[in-house]
Order: sequence, then structure tokens, then C-alpha cells
Amino acid sequence: MNHGAAAGAARSDRAGAGLLRRTDAGRRALEAALRGVRGANPLVGAVVLDAHGTVLATGHHGGAGTAHAEAAAIAELERRLDAGEIAPVPGNEPADWSIVVTLEPCNHTGRTGPCSHAIHRAGIGTVVFGAADTTAEAAGGAAWLAARGHTVHAGDAVAPDWAHSCRRLNHRWAAARADGRPFVTLHLAQTLDGRIAAEDGTSQWITGAEARRHSHGVRARADAIVVGTGTVLVDDPRLTARTDDGRATDRQPLRVVMGERDVPAAAAVRGPSEEYLHLRTRDPRRVLRVLADGAGGRTVDHVMVEGGASVATAFLAADLVDEVWLYQAPLLLGAGRGAVGDLGVSTLADGRRFDYDDAGDGAVLRLGGDVALHLVPTSK
Amino acid sequence: MNHGAAAGAARSDRAGAGLLRRTDAGRRALEAALRGVRGANPLVGAVVLDAHGTVLATGHHGGAGTAHAEAAAIAELERRLDAGEIAPVPGNEPADWSIVVTLEPCNHTGRTGPCSHAIHRAGIGTVVFGAADTTAEAAGGAAWLAARGHTVHAGDAVAPDWAHSCRRLNHRWAAARADGRPFVTLHLAQTLDGRIAAEDGTSQWITGAEARRHSHGVRARADAIVVGTGTVLVDDPRLTARTDDGRATDRQPLRVVMGERDVPAAAAVRGPSEEYLHLRTRDPRRVLRVLADGAGGRTVDHVMVEGGASVATAFLAADLVDEVWLYQAPLLLGAGRGAVGDLGVSTLADGRRFDYDDAGDGAVLRLGGDVALHLVPTSK
Repeated sequence: MNHGAAAGAARSDRAGAGLLRRTDAGRRALEAALRGVRGANPLVGAVVLDAHGTVLATGHHGGAGTAHAEAAAIAELERRLDAGEIAPVPGNEPADWSIVVTLEPCNHTGRTGPCSHAIHRAGIGTVVFGAADTTAEAAGGAAWLAARGHTVHAGDAVAPDWAHSCRRLNHRWAAARADGRPFVTLHLAQTLDGRIAAEDGTSQWITGAEARRHSHGVRARADAIVVGTGTVLVDDPRLTARTDDGRATDRQPLRVVMGERDVPAAAAVRGPSEEYLHLRTRDPRRVLRVLADGAGGRTVDHVMVEGGASVATAFLAADLVDEVWLYQAPLLLGAGRGAVGDLGVSTLADGRRFDYDDAGDGAVLRLGGDVALHLVPTSK
Repeated sequence: MNHGAAAGAARSDRAGAGLLRRTDAGRRALEAALRGVRGANPLVGAVVLDAHGTVLATGHHGGAGTAHAEAAAIAELERRLDAGEIAPVPGNEPADWSIVVTLEPCNHTGRTGPCSHAIHRAGIGTVVFGAADTTAEAAGGAAWLAARGHTVHAGDAVAPDWAHSCRRLNHRWAAARADGRPFVTLHLAQTLDGRIAAEDGTSQWITGAEARRHSHGVRARADAIVVGTGTVLVDDPRLTARTDDGRATDRQPLRVVMGERDVPAAAAVRGPSEEYLHLRTRDPRRVLRVLADGAGGRTVDHVMVEGGASVATAFLAADLVDEVWLYQAPLLLGAGRGAVGDLGVSTLADGRRFDYDDAGDGAVLRLGGDVALHLVPTSK
């Protein structure tokens, strides 16, 4: 073992810890990350600091297909350099600057280029990251940068609490990835007493136009929408993502019906387009496996489960829900179909607990006459 | 008919309408009113304006036993005059000033003095009020002031929309008064799927400490707390209003148990004090009538209904709930006892609708790990 090198690394990590303490950049990067939306990709936030700890740029990842957080922060940095808002001087130029990012910079080319290369090109001297990237395809960014002379600090070495927060930020996303399945968003639209239909079956509309618009925004981000055969038979939904004026958005999710009953030939879900799939199973694990394997003819990294109650219950009972958007109308029915059925919970302590999720629009929203709650399962 | 007097009144009312339009004082008075809390008394807000329409003071009624809105605004006005922050000059002295208040100034001495007299003593020349006071004991303030030379405008004559908003602000309170019954607050504490107990009956605690603290604050304002015999038998609650450290607050509500079953001799609700009443009925109208008639040995103008489900359902079904505080824990049970039972609603259009109530702390609150919704039945 090279004691000199170890002592140097320890000194360097103390400097990295000091940087985070002094600048509050770790918290700022987490805040930036929360501006993103959940789905196919993790939430990531990045902050670029100069030699004095002044924030030069901030970035976050806005969802699949958009710039990564580091790329967004570097684009902002370059815009400010070009505009002359920032003027590097000896002792305070890129080599003296730092980028603090909640997740290890990726090292692979997906829909966007590798962040490790972007940081290297920008010449930012120091990189501090929170959570390590554990995915097979994107890991290795830290090592790649260190090998090219950047000073790289892992959160666990310089600020373990912050690194823990960075991991918690995407704990469900990471679990889904580790499990080889898509990230799952559950959509629930119900009354105050948790009902999705009145006794006579009427259910349109429990929530109002603003809540429906919001859920169409989530739909438009998903790669696939899943409903049960019961919902198809009762509601005959189209499952397309639509704009306010009812037109289909450019990007459309795959429409998936799960369940053993037949889907009528005239069902709207079959649609004018081919992106439709009927999976004759009630097993949510099987549905996710088939979708992950590309059975729908496209990559499915993010699934939105829209119901009905049996499907929602099956996903919840199997702990396959990573995020919930619960839309709640200020209405009591006192009878009718509940949003969620038997979860195998018989005593209060075994209830399924959630944390509020501040990502995106926030955890508790008033949408016209309704309230939306954004929830993430409490980690055990 | 004296045509000259009628023309003078019309001219004067045009001036009153112009005052509201110019100053936005009507909206300000409504906003001030919403800072109050619902219960025994209506929400009222008041704004004092000088001759140029500048706001000199604002006041609201903070609940039974506290100053009325006009008295609060005048106290603020006097404080500012004493401090020299306001200096009357000829043409802009009290006789040239106006007070805009959402409800007709009261003309009776309750726990506080009549507002009509306070306005007269302050010498404020013009009074604009929104809703007329229709209660037998407090009405007549406008006439009393007009007889003493004040210019008095009724909202309906100068700003009908504003007057309508002022009436809507307290529509349930006014209906309860007209009905000769106390104002009723319903307390619900439930899971996301509308359950108040798991399948095995466990229910403590669904909501957390902050939500319970908030509901103790509501309890401390109420004159009586009503629960069913079932709740007494299952939960054995004390029904006292307590501070954060568990001590009973000075003012304690009457503890009322309704239902036909016996209350055990050792039940905590019987308490160390005498303020306990068992009404052997399941009829919420009967309970309110008995309480309004003073059977509990005290004046009961505000009742808080704490459950359980049968009692909550009975009050809701009889349209005897004027305000709901719904505390909701981020938890799904999928089975167990629902907060609300059969309301006689079989189709969606007949559901019991509510509006969000921004009075007091606001309509949608995050209380620690829980969310509280403050609701008022939608007027038909």
C-alpha cells in the first residue's frame, strides 16, 4: 500500500467535505434534482461552483430524452461564459471549479452523450457525487474522470448523510432497475372516502378537468399504460395521452390490457394505431417482465398503471408500485367501489405507508376542485 | 314618497360603490375574515379607509370570546393614531373615513360590546357592510348607525357580487342559526382509502402527533364534543382538549355520548369533572336540539363530532355537518372500517360535494406526515 497516496486521498477528501459544508452545494443539488419528474430515469441535480464556492450554474434532469443534470448545468455555465457573466481568472478558472452532482456522472451514450466526457471537456477540476451509479451500462464515470486527472470525491467519503439522501432520492428507481423491471407509477382517482365508482357504477367524472389534464401529463411521459380487462369493459378508455384540446400528443404510450377476459373487437383501447397489447394474465410481475423483454415492440422503462381496483391492488400487494399520483375529489359517496381492495393487511402496523414526494410539481397540489397527492412507498 | 331623499340615497350609493371599486376594500375585508376560525360565531373581516382610500387598519374576528372584526380594526386604528402613525387633517379625519365590513355591525352586547357603538364612538363617517345580520339578537346595527348620522351602505345596494360573497362566507353558519341549532364541525381521521380502523380493529394511531395536536385545537374551541357509544366502548376516549404536553386546557368542551347502549361506569369519558352527558338516541337532530336547549348546563353554539363512523354518517346523511376537518395519513389498508357509511347515495351525481375552506390555517395543510383538508359542504 502506498501510504503517501492514501494520506493524499484523505487530505483531498477533507477538502471535498469542507467544500460541501461551506457551500451547501449538496442540498442545492438535491433541490435541483427534485425539479425533475419520476419515470424511466432517476432524479439528478448538479451545481457548478467556482473557487470561492459561488454557484456558477445549476442543472437537473427533466426526464427521459432530455439533458442529464451535469449537461444541463454545463450548458448553463457555457451560456454564462459566452455572455460574459462569468470571467475566469488565474486561480479561479475551470480547473479550480467543482461540480457537485447527486448521482455519479454517467459514462455511456444513451439518448444523450456521457456526462463524464462533458465534465472533462468543460475542464472542471473537481467532481463530488452523492450516490454511485450501479447500473451496468452507465457506471464507471467517476473512475474515467479520475483517470484523466480530475479530483473525484464519492459522497460516502466526504458527506455520508448527503450520500444517503442522494440514494434515498431514487431508492425505488434503483430497486426497479436492480430487479430488471420498469419503474411503475400508479394512478388513482377517487373520492374522499376512497371510492372510484358509485353503487350504480357511475364514475365519470369523479375528478375534474385539471386533475385529468395533470394525469395526461404523466401518461405522456410513460412508455406504457396498463389497465385491466374490467376497466376496458366498463369504461372503454382510449388510453392515449391528449393535450388540453383533446388532440393526441406526438409521443404515445403503448396501450396494455392485462387480464384473462377477452377485449372486445370494437374496444377503443385497440385504437387506430398498432401500439396495443393484451396480456392474458393477472400477475403484475409477469406483465412487467413481458414489457421489459420488449414484447410490445419498444423499450418500456416506465409503466403507468391506471386501474381498475383489481389491477391497482395487484401491483400494490406485490410491492410493484414505485410512485403514486392520487387525485382526490372533495366528495363523499358512502358506498360504491373502492380504489384499492384486499392488500393482505389485517392490522394497522402492517398498512402500506407512503412518504410525500416533493419531486416535480410538489407533493400536495390543488388542481382546480381536486387535490393531488404525490407519494412514494416508505422504504423499509 | 320623498323623491329628493331617494335621489340623494342613490347618489350616495353610487359613491359607496365607487369606494369599493377604487379601493378593493371589499376583497381585503373578505381576506381578513378568512383569518378567523369557524365555530360558534361567523367569520367577519373589516377594513378602515381614509378619505383617499388608503387602508388605515384591518381587523377580523378570531372566534367566540374575542373582539369582533370592527372592534379589532378600530383598536388597531386607535393604536396607530396614538403612535402618531396616522394624523387626521381637515378633509381627512374620522368623519371622512369609511369602515368596510363583511357583515352588518352587531347591535347587541354579548361577550363583547356592540360594534355599532364602537364605530359611532370612533366617529367613522361611512359604513359599508356586505351581508345583513339576520340574527334576532344582533340585527339593527345599520339602522342604529344611520339614525345617528353615519352614511350606511348595504352591500346589496353598492356591490351585489361582493354582498353575495359575504353571505356565502358564512352560509352554513347562517343556516344553522336559522335552524336554531349549533354549528357542527365533523372530525375525520383516516387512511388514503378512507378507513378508520384495520380489519382487526386497530386504529391508534392512524394520523400522527401534529394532526392530533391540530384537532385538539379545534376541540378546545368547541362547546361540546359528540361521539357514539361504539367509540366509547372501543377506544375509551377522554374527549378532553389537551395541550402538547398532555395537560387539559382551561376551557373544556362538554363531553356528549350519543347512542342507545350503556356507557360503562369506568369509561374515561365520564371524567373527573361533571361536564358529561349521555343522550340515548341515534338521531343527530335530537342531539343538537337537546344541546341547543341547554341540557348540558351550558350554552352550546359549536359542536365537534368526533365519530365513529355511524355517528359521522348520521350527521352527514342529515346534512348537519357545517365544516369538515379531514386528517389523512399516507397509508393504505385495503380492508377495515370505513370512515363513512351509507349516505343514501347510489349514483355519482348525488354524492355529497364539498368546497375547500380557506378559513383559518387554510384548506390543504401538511401536518407532519399527514395532510389535513378543510371542507365546507357545497351549497345547493
